[in-house]
Amino acid sequence: MLEDLSQQPLPADTVGLLEGLISTRAIRRYTGEDIPDADLRAILFAATRAPSGSNRQPTRYIVLRHGPKAQAARRLLGESARRVWLGKREGDQYDKGSGSRSGSPKTRMAATMTNYVEHYESVPVVILVCHLRYRQPVPSEGGNVYPACQNLLLAARALGYGGVMTGFHGFAEAELHELLGIPEQAFIASTITLGRPAGHHGPVRRAPLAGVVYEDEWGASTPWAVDPPGARHTSAGPPGTWQKTPEA
Amino acid sequence: MLEDLSQQPLPADTVGLLEGLISTRAIRRYTGEDIPDADLRAILFAATRAPSGSNRQPTRYIVLRHGPKAQAARRLLGESARRVWLGKREGDQYDKGSGSRSGSPKTRMAATMTNYVEHYESVPVVILVCHLRYRQPVPSEGGNVYPACQNLLLAARALGYGGVMTGFHGFAEAELHELLGIPEQAFIASTITLGRPAGHHGPVRRAPLAGVVYEDEWGASTPWAVDPPGARHTSAGPPGTWQKTPEA
Repeated sequence: MLEDLSQQPLPADTVGLLEGLISTRAIRRYTGEDIPDADLRAILFAATRAPSGSNRQPTRYIVLRHGPKAQAARRLLGESARRVWLGKREGDQYDKGSGSRSGSPKTRMAATMTNYVEHYESVPVVILVCHLRYRQPVPSEGGNVYPACQNLLLAARALGYGGVMTGFHGFAEAELHELLGIPEQAFIASTITLGRPAGHHGPVRRAPLAGVVYEDEWGASTPWAVDPPGARHTSAGPPGTWQKTPEA
Repeated sequence: MLEDLSQQPLPADTVGLLEGLISTRAIRRYTGEDIPDADLRAILFAATRAPSGSNRQPTRYIVLRHGPKAQAARRLLGESARRVWLGKREGDQYDKGSGSRSGSPKTRMAATMTNYVEHYESVPVVILVCHLRYRQPVPSEGGNVYPACQNLLLAARALGYGGVMTGFHGFAEAELHELLGIPEQAFIASTITLGRPAGHHGPVRRAPLAGVVYEDEWGASTPWAVDPPGARHTSAGPPGTWQKTPEA
């Protein structure tokens, strides 16, 4: 029997807002389980509640599941994802340094990524998030689309799912525009995969707060910018960013 | 007595995750109340838990409150905000059409914006969110900074505050870089103001889900993409986006 979702409210919450914000991990391994329509509706509804400049709402979502075009699009995405990861693995030297030691964070990340791209075609749901441009691109245009991507991932978490935002469509952009009829002015801002986590959400690893939060001027530490008890730090990730903050 | 925040956990949740995502409004009117350090810490901590590509964490936050440079920066921001809004008011024709009728959504939005920029210098907290570039800008770079901006706004909501993300620093960018010692490679991605809402959070107005969520290809509606009962729609905002979705 078809549910009439227009009469059905969104699911009740089981996770708190702050708790969800600080413990939503990038989920790249999924059980085979599908996402029911009612949950997908709630996830997309929450995504569309994100703000955009002047409430212009330039974001469009193409959900790819079982349809004929979806299947073809997912094959293109899988191929592209594998190419992107191959380049990244080499460019960011995932197999060098600690990446050559089994069990290191870098080695584990490389294994997760390899597994992710190799099983791309069987991910439960893929969503292309498109940004409909109304003017020439400016560096801040992402402010109108990526808050919605984050809402989408957080809403998935709220309902017991997980996902990750990628740019893995990079090598397939032109073909995806053609195949799915995406107009030229719609930029594919991200590809998000979603499913039931094979692992778990939980605390994420980040740089210590003191290194990234300043008060009154660039680089100026401030006594209140300290991590709470139990915060998990990381030294992973490619070089060039938080490990070393430049001065003006 | 100074609190030792490093021993203090984050505040407990009072709002659910999905509930927070769908009912966090842009808050532009604040009571004069300050935001205590412990709450500011929690808000920034949640912001930094957002994902970024390869966990590079390129985001830096400059919190502007009462310090001498903060005050000067806020004056620059206030002036810039008033110039930006003046241009927007004219460019987006806020005083034409329904904007000339008292009580219309457009008229009310114009009043809110005018009030916001006129009182900019007395906003409780201003945060410049900077994106530290490690390569030449690409259109998707915002995917590494705007999810953190959204987390920041949602965390503020979780703690009873509210805020709004703006590009109102636009006319003061060079002066802010100079005054605050922001390195050239750090792009000011947004200016976020925060405070205790003079109004309330609650359901936000958006386009009907059916117009922005597609399945299998661009523009293709799907039976499950329907708003839940009570969803609030809008016809406000400048022309050019959701009202009219182009075909390929």
